[in-house]
Amino acid sequence: MTGGGPEIERLIDLMAKLPGLGPRSARRAALALVKKRERLLVPLAMAMAEVAEKVTTCETCGNLAAAPDCAICRDPRRDPSKLCVVEDVADLWALERTAVFRGRYHVLGGVLSALDGVTPESLRIPELATRARDPQITEVILAVGATIDGQTTAHVIADYLEGAGVEITLLAKGVPVGGELDYLDDGTISAALAARKAI
Amino acid sequence: MTGGGPEIERLIDLMAKLPGLGPRSARRAALALVKKRERLLVPLAMAMAEVAEKVTTCETCGNLAAAPDCAICRDPRRDPSKLCVVEDVADLWALERTAVFRGRYHVLGGVLSALDGVTPESLRIPELATRARDPQITEVILAVGATIDGQTTAHVIADYLEGAGVEITLLAKGVPVGGELDYLDDGTISAALAARKAI
Repeated sequence: MTGGGPEIERLIDLMAKLPGLGPRSARRAALALVKKRERLLVPLAMAMAEVAEKVTTCETCGNLAAAPDCAICRDPRRDPSKLCVVEDVADLWALERTAVFRGRYHVLGGVLSALDGVTPESLRIPELATRARDPQITEVILAVGATIDGQTTAHVIADYLEGAGVEITLLAKGVPVGGELDYLDDGTISAALAARKAI
Repeated sequence: MTGGGPEIERLIDLMAKLPGLGPRSARRAALALVKKRERLLVPLAMAMAEVAEKVTTCETCGNLAAAPDCAICRDPRRDPSKLCVVEDVADLWALERTAVFRGRYHVLGGVLSALDGVTPESLRIPELATRARDPQITEVILAVGATIDGQTTAHVIADYLEGAGVEITLLAKGVPVGGELDYLDDGTISAALAARKAI
């Protein structure tokens, strides 16, 4: 109960469902929206309606797109020989921000998890196996998280891609840039040590 | 650059302007919205459009309202003799959640601050002085924060209300419920000690 009317209550309830916002921050955000009606509330309502109407999932790679194919799949400057497999659209965005990878993507939509009933079929792994058989593709990079579920998923994918005639690679494990050894876990230090390189 | 198209980029940019959300959490929130299109994105776009269209500021008290008068000012069960002065709408909501105060409110819209050029006129203090002269009102509770600016504002308001024939009260200062003395600042402990009561 805010005494501000049912419209504002409903806005707060919905905002509180966003990740990263609880009831308290949803109230703050709703108040900020009302205060910045023309500069924030109206544009945001319109942006949301537009995304709801136009943005869909790229049929090829699983990225978000305003067309059946996403901007990356359509881009002819992208290297068609490299396919980077990521867990989620957020991971694809993180890779795009680095602007280092110039190939194309395949978004799994999660990682395998027996506990949560996530099977290869629910993760677009069969679609990946089909894509990987495209003779243009020579390398499939498994850019999954260095978690137990992520690495399990990588190994299952490697099995699926056997005989596809592609090189399968995994992201390197090691000390994160800027990381101090003192603060790293044993697993990371062991991995970094095992994968050491001559300078 | 997300590769997801300009619609999603625009949504992320606007979401990142909300208090409590940065660029990273705005991306997460935008992805969550796209994933929950029917359950969250569409209702939220509609809720925002509705708030933008309908919700305004109560002409009497400054609370948010979907009518010229807010639900609290209209409610005849509210005690017309008590007026609670708060800094912001968020504070009004916080008081309403406790459901202890049954009078009406006056929202200042901030606190006095010479540094930020906030004057009594920009804070609806003259309007408060006019309201307080209503013979129905017998008590004005200054529920402002226990900050330097809040307490300064309280004293300026007390000066403005001189001769209005109302009792002016301030919220009690002391140990917050559940608070441990060990973690409290000196000011709070001093205030709690000075205002001690016989049990």
